Amino acid sequence: MARRYETISFLSDYGHADEFVGVVHSVIRSIAPHAVVIDLVHDLAPYDLRAASLALSRSVQYVAPGIVLAIVDPGVGGGRRPIAVEVGEDGEGVLVGPDNGLLAAAVALSGGATRAVELTNPAYQLPAPGPTFAGRDVFAPAAAHLAAGVPIAELGPELDPHTLVPGLLPLSQVEPGAVIGEVLWVDRYGNCQLNVDPAEIDSFGDRIALHLPHDQVRTAARVSTFEDLGPGQVGLVVDSYGLIAVVGDRASAAEILRLEPGTGVRLEPAV
Amino acid sequence: MARRYETISFLSDYGHADEFVGVVHSVIRSIAPHAVVIDLVHDLAPYDLRAASLALSRSVQYVAPGIVLAIVDPGVGGGRRPIAVEVGEDGEGVLVGPDNGLLAAAVALSGGATRAVELTNPAYQLPAPGPTFAGRDVFAPAAAHLAAGVPIAELGPELDPHTLVPGLLPLSQVEPGAVIGEVLWVDRYGNCQLNVDPAEIDSFGDRIALHLPHDQVRTAARVSTFEDLGPGQVGLVVDSYGLIAVVGDRASAAEILRLEPGTGVRLEPAV
Amino acid sequence: MARRYETISFLSDYGHADEFVGVVHSVIRSIAPHAVVIDLVHDLAPYDLRAASLALSRSVQYVAPGIVLAIVDPGVGGGRRPIAVEVGEDGEGVLVGPDNGLLAAAVALSGGATRAVELTNPAYQLPAPGPTFAGRDVFAPAAAHLAAGVPIAELGPELDPHTLVPGLLPLSQVEPGAVIGEVLWVDRYGNCQLNVDPAEIDSFGDRIALHLPHDQVRTAARVSTFEDLGPGQVGLVVDSYGLIAVVGDRASAAEILRLEPGTGVRLEPAV
Repeated sequence: MARRYETISFLSDYGHADEFVGVVHSVIRSIAPHAVVIDLVHDLAPYDLRAASLALSRSVQYVAPGIVLAIVDPGVGGGRRPIAVEVGEDGEGVLVGPDNGLLAAAVALSGGATRAVELTNPAYQLPAPGPTFAGRDVFAPAAAHLAAGVPIAELGPELDPHTLVPGLLPLSQVEPGAVIGEVLWVDRYGNCQLNVDPAEIDSFGDRIALHLPHDQVRTAARVSTFEDLGPGQVGLVVDSYGLIAVVGDRASAAEILRLEPGTGVRLEPAV
Repeated sequence: MARRYETISFLSDYGHADEFVGVVHSVIRSIAPHAVVIDLVHDLAPYDLRAASLALSRSVQYVAPGIVLAIVDPGVGGGRRPIAVEVGEDGEGVLVGPDNGLLAAAVALSGGATRAVELTNPAYQLPAPGPTFAGRDVFAPAAAHLAAGVPIAELGPELDPHTLVPGLLPLSQVEPGAVIGEVLWVDRYGNCQLNVDPAEIDSFGDRIALHLPHDQVRTAARVSTFEDLGPGQVGLVVDSYGLIAVVGDRASAAEILRLEPGTGVRLEPAV
Repeated sequence: MARRYETISFLSDYGHADEFVGVVHSVIRSIAPHAVVIDLVHDLAPYDLRAASLALSRSVQYVAPGIVLAIVDPGVGGGRRPIAVEVGEDGEGVLVGPDNGLLAAAVALSGGATRAVELTNPAYQLPAPGPTFAGRDVFAPAAAHLAAGVPIAELGPELDPHTLVPGLLPLSQVEPGAVIGEVLWVDRYGNCQLNVDPAEIDSFGDRIALHLPHDQVRTAARVSTFEDLGPGQVGLVVDSYGLIAVVGDRASAAEILRLEPGTGVRLEPAV
């Protein structure tokens, strides 16, 4: 018996219109009834590995100790490897999911992989009538058996962590008098997180010019919080992850400025 | 050690497209692993304090004993106070959220506040990279520490409950031969709950004229349940909260009559 | 005391915009605090008994032992009977819901009813201000009291299982050189499950002609998984329930072919 885990934190692109999330919970409940499953988010756009990887990266520092089960898996049933990646001291945490880059940033933020295996042992899988629901048949059973104390080495052959598919998170570029970034995330409220660190624009003053696609330029005020803004105004705040976000006050900055994930934004001091 | 609580009932406008709800669960799980979190509803319209306050009021009589965590917080990071309000005998329940009127009706329905504090003690908060996610950094930790037995007085200075922001729930007006109400809530099925008590229209007979905006008048039958209605017909039932609701049979009364929350409805006996 | 149950698996058409699901959880938590509630799916289309029955059928083989609570109940408050149906050896499982056909297929897949009762005993219901939320007032209390060890016979008079409303699941028709089926389910990704068994088209070769409404004919490749398909191509896979599904690779077959639940599909060997 290896250590047991009490919590499985679960992220996917399964949505809520079908019973996928519920069936994964059911499988875990049957194998590891002691484990509590925390749903991080499931309404990510289908197949959107970038959004999923970012959501997982934002969450991972807050998840309870234990297992992370992350499933966005457009290559299900094909060549991509199903994996479990151990992180932290003495197997403090394990991330389970497809080897398609989804887990990479979260693994790095957790201190890097200490061990990885490919999930090939059928003894810890459900019999699959077809190959298209690996969440139910491969990943959930792996997470649940790990939670119940099965050693990770039982799940399949060890992999060299350096062979795992890397993640690709966009970096900002700093030029003299300008920072070139992009929108990482548009949240429900229309707040637009940029891949820009506050320190990168500290010398830019209180009014920042945002150069957007189609030669659009808008001025945004550096503010502390939403209610420092007037109606229709957009501002820049340090958001809850310590990054610069473009926001409105009870209004969607994404709608006002037509921003979406991936939109390029060039920031300069406003003249 | 104060009393511990086993259940945290959680309502917000966080939606399900982002990981906000999941991160709040994660924070609670890390601080108070024994507590069960019940999600009341999270897909309220962003910032819609009225809808949130009504949903909370409808729910509060059914929640399991313990803590209510309610977060609709357009003023996050600004001047509004984060609070915890104790209700019932011997701290039977505690409501945690922003002091912006959201909690007021639920507090009143729970017998009124016996004690209130402002959540200012950083020992019971998470370090916040930015001020915009108080659910994660202030409210969830407060709820979890309360659940784990931290006395409410530890969370911050006591407030006079009379200084809390009041709620504003719309009352109906009774005139001779008429009741003037409004739509409180349109549910998923298009049923439209009015702020009208059945007793207020008891003398109106079985057919009621609904005077709607744009001089629209429709006749509704007083019925016991949906299937008493024919296709395309609208009726009035006593709904599951004991209020009058405008309904159709397997059809949306809101669509048929173009009603939405806040729409005024004047009820008279049909001639 | 009868046996207790640790898990209640919950399916409904309540959606997530209102607090219905949360209130049902709250009622169960108050009556049977030891029970874990697993949400199977709630975003089924309102009143869609066919979709709900199919989702329940797909799920039931995976749910943890215990109670299934299934609520799609357009006739609420009317003549349909609220029921609990015992299945398996020694009351291994119980399904709770309205007697409108919703439970029938799941009961059959669980080996058939060993006992059934009508939920009429008010001692195991909540007082209802109005009759429209039986999930809260009748079904959730029944499920929770069963979980807590109340014998099923206490909940109301026994019913002859043969009098329960049957389910209607569409069967495929096999003709010489053709199978006539229909779309059972379009999932979030646009995969279209047919009521067609792989064996029924085994002799049809690797390329299958799909005859669709409006004389549309499309050729689909029999493939093992999504990534065997090229862009814009549709294929047939054996899906995770062992049925034939029409799919695309990271694309919605439902959108490409304009399929929806109930659409008729005739399969023939492609010439």
